[in-house]
Amino acid sequence: MAEVKNKQVLLRDYVCGYPKESDMYVTTTSTLNLKLPQGSIGVLVKNLYLSCDPYMRNRMKKLLDPTYYAESFKPNSPISGFGVAEVLESGDLKFKEGDLVWGITGWEQYSVINATKSVFKIHDTDVPLSYYAGILGMPGMTAYAGFYELCSPKKGEYVFVSAASGAVGQLVGQFAKLLGCYVVGSAGTKEKVDLLKNKFGYDEAFNYKEEADLDAALKRYFPEGIDIYFENVGGKMLDAVLLNMRLNARIAVCGMISQYNLEYPEGVHNLMNLITKQARLQGFVVTNYYHLYPKFLEFILPSIKQGKIVYVEDVVQGLENAPAALVGLFLGRNVGKQIVAISHE
Amino acid sequence: MAEVKNKQVLLRDYVCGYPKESDMYVTTTSTLNLKLPQGSIGVLVKNLYLSCDPYMRNRMKKLLDPTYYAESFKPNSPISGFGVAEVLESGDLKFKEGDLVWGITGWEQYSVINATKSVFKIHDTDVPLSYYAGILGMPGMTAYAGFYELCSPKKGEYVFVSAASGAVGQLVGQFAKLLGCYVVGSAGTKEKVDLLKNKFGYDEAFNYKEEADLDAALKRYFPEGIDIYFENVGGKMLDAVLLNMRLNARIAVCGMISQYNLEYPEGVHNLMNLITKQARLQGFVVTNYYHLYPKFLEFILPSIKQGKIVYVEDVVQGLENAPAALVGLFLGRNVGKQIVAISHE
Repeated sequence: MAEVKNKQVLLRDYVCGYPKESDMYVTTTSTLNLKLPQGSIGVLVKNLYLSCDPYMRNRMKKLLDPTYYAESFKPNSPISGFGVAEVLESGDLKFKEGDLVWGITGWEQYSVINATKSVFKIHDTDVPLSYYAGILGMPGMTAYAGFYELCSPKKGEYVFVSAASGAVGQLVGQFAKLLGCYVVGSAGTKEKVDLLKNKFGYDEAFNYKEEADLDAALKRYFPEGIDIYFENVGGKMLDAVLLNMRLNARIAVCGMISQYNLEYPEGVHNLMNLITKQARLQGFVVTNYYHLYPKFLEFILPSIKQGKIVYVEDVVQGLENAPAALVGLFLGRNVGKQIVAISHE
Repeated sequence: MAEVKNKQVLLRDYVCGYPKESDMYVTTTSTLNLKLPQGSIGVLVKNLYLSCDPYMRNRMKKLLDPTYYAESFKPNSPISGFGVAEVLESGDLKFKEGDLVWGITGWEQYSVINATKSVFKIHDTDVPLSYYAGILGMPGMTAYAGFYELCSPKKGEYVFVSAASGAVGQLVGQFAKLLGCYVVGSAGTKEKVDLLKNKFGYDEAFNYKEEADLDAALKRYFPEGIDIYFENVGGKMLDAVLLNMRLNARIAVCGMISQYNLEYPEGVHNLMNLITKQARLQGFVVTNYYHLYPKFLEFILPSIKQGKIVYVEDVVQGLENAPAALVGLFLGRNVGKQIVAISHE
């Protein structure tokens, strides 16, 4: 029975404010038998890619609400999140040795995943494997469900996406263009704005950090107003969008990354416009839409292979660099989907 | 051709902050021929009851958005709003002399209504005629559409209504009880709280002015959280509700009366809970639901006659008292639906 060192990224303690690299630490003191315990119905996996996602910020807090969709990370325990892995041994009949899978795993070289209902088997390896932590995984499904299911988009509608070059945003913009919408995105650097226009096909894009007046910026790009807003940032941007909605506007609330590190979230002042514009603001969590995953793959895999949809990833190598990658997400350092590759460790 | 004096309530000028009686004035200098102009397709009516509604506050401002659902009142012109009237002469084949109607009319003794598409003929006079300015008119339809169409209520759900004894709120609470929901209402005086519990059948009710911590108040009445919130007030109450939503909560945004007189609306801080609770916040305007009016009458008329639904009105007499009645609405002076009776003038 092979006993191996298992390099891990652990949370040091619950986090206040912006997360820092020092809120996590990497150890190699843990060892693991590369064998499932007798009678286990889980899977033993070797992790290949880990996904850095904004929702993880919440898990770094002490969460008290038992109905919350995710649990707190435990101090001095490995962080967990979405990832791509190879099955080394399986106690679940759905999986066998050598299978590639994606789902919730640990930030470590090897994991025993007991909750296999949130693990998906990978069938198509004709695409980069890391895509299953992004476009073909949770972020892809998030863009798909949030845009198509919540926003009921129609050809010709005016669509705005914030954090528009991120893991989810870059896809929403492309989905909207495929449908024949007019699409504008916001992002936080010139490089990202260029990506939006030149790589993802957004009609227009702007750097929100260079706009003193977000309301004026939106009026410039949407003189007729906004039908659909895919909300990734919250705060002042949401307030500006509320001033620029068209009748029957739909806002899918996917995330509010500008608020996650504040002790007290900013106030949003323009909600009265929901009445006059008969508009809808709807939050969602992707896990409720996983039943659509097969349908999503049928749509997205050919679109990728035919080059109709592209995906930009920001890949860092090695578990040692995972804390910096996760922290960077909240500073907008990533360009595209932030991935940690650990397949060679 | 009879020429009569036509007593009117006029707006003095656009209003900032809380409206005052002096923002309006009553005159009898206007005269009117009690005859429609040759070729008119409108109706000449004698007004009987006028309705004071919170949405009228917006019309006292200079509204600049042409897509807005209502227009500004014009300074030195009569205020307009919902009312009940008797047809004296009709140029529209749908109406004839002697018909009773409800719809948008002027704050004056006699009006010529040209926009007859927003005028409804009254067929059932077996109920108080003033009801057509309340439970059987716009506020009734608002409660009906907002609760049944937007909130998709189910038996046993936890329902919260703010401004719960108002023209709309008192009906929403009763609709929810008829359906077998648990219903709590908030209001601003002990008298109103007593009405909620003893007259409208709310399970619980509280005076929001006596609650230093609205979040704590809601947690007291909804230890399991809120499924449906019928939003009439906005601001701090909305913020507290956002902290107490159950999964898949629905908030129908009917009005935000606490915000109408502020120069800059208060900030709402807890919108992130929309994501984690996969909740929906949806604004609406009742005019889009008037196609349901016949269905609504089929439900509500027997309910009234069988005593299953009650309605409390606050009736003042005379056009002279209309400005005070309208102003009082924003100070919570009315108990139940605020009506101005002018039938005897």
